[in-house]
Amino acid sequence: MIDLSSLTHIAFDADDTLWGHEHVFVDAKKRCLELLSPYMKPGMDLEQELYAFERKNLKIFGYGVKGFTLSMIETAVELSGGKIPGSAIQQIIDLGKEMLTHDIELLPGVREALTALKPHFKLLLITKGELFAQESKIARSGLAAEFDIIEIVSEKDPVTYQNLLDRHGIDPAGFLMLGNSLRSDVLPIVEIGGRAAHLPYEYTWHHEAVNEEEAAAGYWRPEGGLGELVQAVLKGL
Amino acid sequence: MIDLSSLTHIAFDADDTLWGHEHVFVDAKKRCLELLSPYMKPGMDLEQELYAFERKNLKIFGYGVKGFTLSMIETAVELSGGKIPGSAIQQIIDLGKEMLTHDIELLPGVREALTALKPHFKLLLITKGELFAQESKIARSGLAAEFDIIEIVSEKDPVTYQNLLDRHGIDPAGFLMLGNSLRSDVLPIVEIGGRAAHLPYEYTWHHEAVNEEEAAAGYWRPEGGLGELVQAVLKGL
Repeated sequence: MIDLSSLTHIAFDADDTLWGHEHVFVDAKKRCLELLSPYMKPGMDLEQELYAFERKNLKIFGYGVKGFTLSMIETAVELSGGKIPGSAIQQIIDLGKEMLTHDIELLPGVREALTALKPHFKLLLITKGELFAQESKIARSGLAAEFDIIEIVSEKDPVTYQNLLDRHGIDPAGFLMLGNSLRSDVLPIVEIGGRAAHLPYEYTWHHEAVNEEEAAAGYWRPEGGLGELVQAVLKGL
Repeated sequence: MIDLSSLTHIAFDADDTLWGHEHVFVDAKKRCLELLSPYMKPGMDLEQELYAFERKNLKIFGYGVKGFTLSMIETAVELSGGKIPGSAIQQIIDLGKEMLTHDIELLPGVREALTALKPHFKLLLITKGELFAQESKIARSGLAAEFDIIEIVSEKDPVTYQNLLDRHGIDPAGFLMLGNSLRSDVLPIVEIGGRAAHLPYEYTWHHEAVNEEEAAAGYWRPEGGLGELVQAVLKGL
């Protein structure tokens, strides 16, 4: 565990931290693969091919559902040798639309955590993705009013975080970030002198003593998830 | 003409103000219509149908090229009765990719205007669109370093502008916005007490005396475009 005293600002990642998100992509991929299976030649690894298109297109489309949908269509055209019927293309587009409008389900304890922290700290939401899609999700989540600052960024690297904190006059020394991604939410924050807690989306890791390597890395992964973190932060007041 | 003294901040719209943009959509639509014409039934108004899909999808996809590309595909599937071949779908996706990676051509006088204004004012770039696509265009334009503040927004209405100015501690009374769109760049700024100049993308309007209605509306449309505006602003120093 890390020192949680002298905090002024607490920031939350959104997708898979405030609400479930990855499952939307997992479900969509599964349905896309089912949809395409009749048009594929034997021995094709659909998932592998889709991933290859996603990766190739990332630098043109960026992150997000619309680019992912275009990559699904491209995979369908390529792997079917152009024989994919229009009706299947339309089903893929409809799948993309469902992904963009699905209900937002808050993760357990999120609303309680925000309510408990709000009187004591400035709360930020920092999320990566497409502006319109993220704004739509924040609106649908009903959580917008809980945050003092909402920032949508296209990358989550140390420079982006540093600029964001500078822009708002926030001292990293009083800043705690919570998120499900080590790479995007935790390590860059530690790098710029802030504190971070790792809240994996699926609690699949072994319940075990805090790993020395993690403690040395300057962040905390509370075994009890968000609830334990909130209690610890409030104790630090 | 409006009073141009006591300015502290000058903001530029990007698409069709700093660089040409609309022509990219116009060209893409033209090529899409050519591409689809063999699969259409007689009497169909392709452009009308594409526009109908664009409008219907706007609240799901938002603005931007990726949503536009998905709308082109949807139009193609629908109007061909599902008979559009995969090769044509791929060509539409390639069209979208070209739109996302095309060369940025600065409009005449833009670089000179920024160079002339930079020593005297804080310069802002305020653009509407998708985060990733806009950031990519700003990077490709080579203009990022010219601006003190760059903001990408999903809507350009009075509330968005007011929040943006508040966030940066900018007094609207010292703020001038330049842009090609009356609805997005000019009228909302006048509404929140700022000043605005209208620089239509295509200089198609009649050269005539300043319209009384415009003067009363509190913004200026310099006959000589950006160059005339910069001269007038510098005179106001």
